[in-house]
Amino acid sequence: MRFQKFIASSFIAAFMSTGVAAQDLPKASADRMEAWIMGLAEFGKNADGGVDRVAYSDADLAGRQYIIGELEKLGLEVRIDAGANILARRAGTDNSLKPIMFGSHTDSVPGGGNYDGPAGVIAAMEAIKLMNDAGHTTRHPLELVVFSNEEGGLVGSLAMTGKLKSSALDVVSSSGKTIGEGTRFIGGDPDNLASAIVEPGVYEAFIELHIEQGAFLHEEGIDIGVVEGIVGIGWWDVVIEGFANHAGTTPMNRRQDAMVAAAKLTLAVNEVATTNAGRQVATVGRIEAFPGAPNVIPGRVEMSLEIRDLEQAKIDSVYALIEARAKMIAEETSTKISFTYVDVASAPAPTDERMRELIAGSARFNNYSYKLMPSGAGHDAQDMVHIAPTGMIFVPSVGGISHSPNEFTPSDALAKGADVLARTILAIDAGGLTEH
Amino acid sequence: MRFQKFIASSFIAAFMSTGVAAQDLPKASADRMEAWIMGLAEFGKNADGGVDRVAYSDADLAGRQYIIGELEKLGLEVRIDAGANILARRAGTDNSLKPIMFGSHTDSVPGGGNYDGPAGVIAAMEAIKLMNDAGHTTRHPLELVVFSNEEGGLVGSLAMTGKLKSSALDVVSSSGKTIGEGTRFIGGDPDNLASAIVEPGVYEAFIELHIEQGAFLHEEGIDIGVVEGIVGIGWWDVVIEGFANHAGTTPMNRRQDAMVAAAKLTLAVNEVATTNAGRQVATVGRIEAFPGAPNVIPGRVEMSLEIRDLEQAKIDSVYALIEARAKMIAEETSTKISFTYVDVASAPAPTDERMRELIAGSARFNNYSYKLMPSGAGHDAQDMVHIAPTGMIFVPSVGGISHSPNEFTPSDALAKGADVLARTILAIDAGGLTEH
Repeated sequence: MRFQKFIASSFIAAFMSTGVAAQDLPKASADRMEAWIMGLAEFGKNADGGVDRVAYSDADLAGRQYIIGELEKLGLEVRIDAGANILARRAGTDNSLKPIMFGSHTDSVPGGGNYDGPAGVIAAMEAIKLMNDAGHTTRHPLELVVFSNEEGGLVGSLAMTGKLKSSALDVVSSSGKTIGEGTRFIGGDPDNLASAIVEPGVYEAFIELHIEQGAFLHEEGIDIGVVEGIVGIGWWDVVIEGFANHAGTTPMNRRQDAMVAAAKLTLAVNEVATTNAGRQVATVGRIEAFPGAPNVIPGRVEMSLEIRDLEQAKIDSVYALIEARAKMIAEETSTKISFTYVDVASAPAPTDERMRELIAGSARFNNYSYKLMPSGAGHDAQDMVHIAPTGMIFVPSVGGISHSPNEFTPSDALAKGADVLARTILAIDAGGLTEH
Repeated sequence: MRFQKFIASSFIAAFMSTGVAAQDLPKASADRMEAWIMGLAEFGKNADGGVDRVAYSDADLAGRQYIIGELEKLGLEVRIDAGANILARRAGTDNSLKPIMFGSHTDSVPGGGNYDGPAGVIAAMEAIKLMNDAGHTTRHPLELVVFSNEEGGLVGSLAMTGKLKSSALDVVSSSGKTIGEGTRFIGGDPDNLASAIVEPGVYEAFIELHIEQGAFLHEEGIDIGVVEGIVGIGWWDVVIEGFANHAGTTPMNRRQDAMVAAAKLTLAVNEVATTNAGRQVATVGRIEAFPGAPNVIPGRVEMSLEIRDLEQAKIDSVYALIEARAKMIAEETSTKISFTYVDVASAPAPTDERMRELIAGSARFNNYSYKLMPSGAGHDAQDMVHIAPTGMIFVPSVGGISHSPNEFTPSDALAKGADVLARTILAIDAGGLTEH
């Protein structure tokens, strides 16, 4: 058992060697975290009880200014990089050591909630606060990060990892501004993005705490999710070509109805994903029939296909099964079905195995229950895996609701997450990623 | 056999009593009809070989002026009623008798062809020409009609039958003009629509020749369709409510996917219409999933349902079967499915049985093959059934193609239709609708 072996050596050693005894680091304060959540929730607050704080909006800028003020109150030295990421530094006792980075984002989807992103930023602030209150200075410098425009395409973490394409700067974001204009609006420098790039090996580790956005932890009553990785996403545009004809004069047995073929394919997608072993998901989220009139048999349907799994091989095999079903459906319905791969998809991003073990150990140290689980949603962490050993901590989402004003994580659950984050930072600082 | 009995009495009597012997009425000229078709095809001609001659466009107005010129060359007295219908009168020998009306329309759908509508107007012109050439004057006055804006909602025939709602005048048509503005643009008087209304009993009969817009006649090699009636249309807006959720974090077995329910319902609609005996058709032509992103499980789908049949009871029973299936699907998929009846639908409009018999007799008289058939498409005739004994003559559409630049009926097939139309007019004129 690799995990057990590791616990018995590196992890325990890391805990033993940390300068702070367990009892010396206070427990996270649910009330303080709740106050921060509510403080940030004021920016972009809407009538539904959620927020419209899309990246680059006035509300986004104001929310970031609020957070910067709080970071400064915590004694951190704040700067904004060219990609508009907020970086807040706390010096270590040995500043020649690599910094440990942790954080998340504060922008929301349109009509979003108060936890997707903010939970991770505020847990990071709480971890700093706990160390401040304990009078503890880590050996490594610490760097709290607030990534820019996560919801609009992981812009900040792509900029940091050198993967933001220059063409992306011209893309119009939900705010109405282009990504370039928006980056400048919130303090970045789109003309100088190279300065934001961080090479692999610069940071000791990266940790992101986030709400689960699924219902597993909440329903199973588990405190902490130790994220195995961020699932990869395969995305295809599907076109079904039949023959548009008069819905009154064309008998049922003479139709080449692209909508009937699309319906069969939608069910095949669902069935393939459901009946095969594994945790893959597959979704048809967008569909349009042409010409789109009630009295015309659709001659063309365009729809989306998305497949996610933690392993690329699984995405590939599910796609192959769906494609084979599509061939049969095309034949049955006298239509033509074609798939075009869309290059916005992302590869699976497994977290660092040692980081998982440190997070699990930190949960046990706090007597919090935990489970290993994939992240079905995308996160800045999936970019960060390319430059640093990366770990992710999930806290429960009530009912699994996310990207909604009804998104909710109780403050005591958030506080448990902050305890695990703080302890994981200490374990890394104590050399948890180094072989002992 | 009612039909045989009728042939043996009223119909044969009508033919016997007509003043023109069979050999005296010349056969329709395919070349002349083709020239008229091509003449009209110049107006709104597009690069695809079809026409964009939507009602109220400049092309529509110019096409109507071309037709009016040709009607005047035929010696007819032309007027335009308040509903912008063109009415061209040929006096009878006894002008106290009710006029016999026949015609169709000249407007097209956007990207339409050269036969849907024009075929009937030009056959009507040819019938007049044949009588002119034979030197024959009917007892009843004849009135050739070119209905306004057929494709945009049977506007001219609704105006004539007093069923055009005043609110319809504000509806924006494909031309960009409102129906009120457009009616005025092509010579009507939207402020005085009451003057266009024709009470039941004013006309002796109404006959419309039209292309089939289906493939039956062409494929079976039959010359003439004797239309039993225009199918009724039931139209519903269907809403499926599931639960929108993250397509990455929501496992397959925890979804309330409105799109999966919509797919099942689409297949159920197809199956119910296909497997039950009869000629009913049912179509899902329009669909939209919300929020409509590839990475969100649809929480809501809106789609259309259209059912057509010649009998209202059949439309009702097919709908009931679909609704029952929807109940099961809603349960299986944990969604809610609701149907809202849309009041633009139309009731089945059976043609006059005597008119069918006169048309069939006229086909036999010309040694043309014929079959009884429903019209799956809507026509001005469906309004005219309310004010006059109405009949419809179909001519073949090659490949059943319609509402397309590829719409085609050979000129010799058109000429056969004109022969049957002319002979039917004579049979009516001879008292074919009167008991003998």
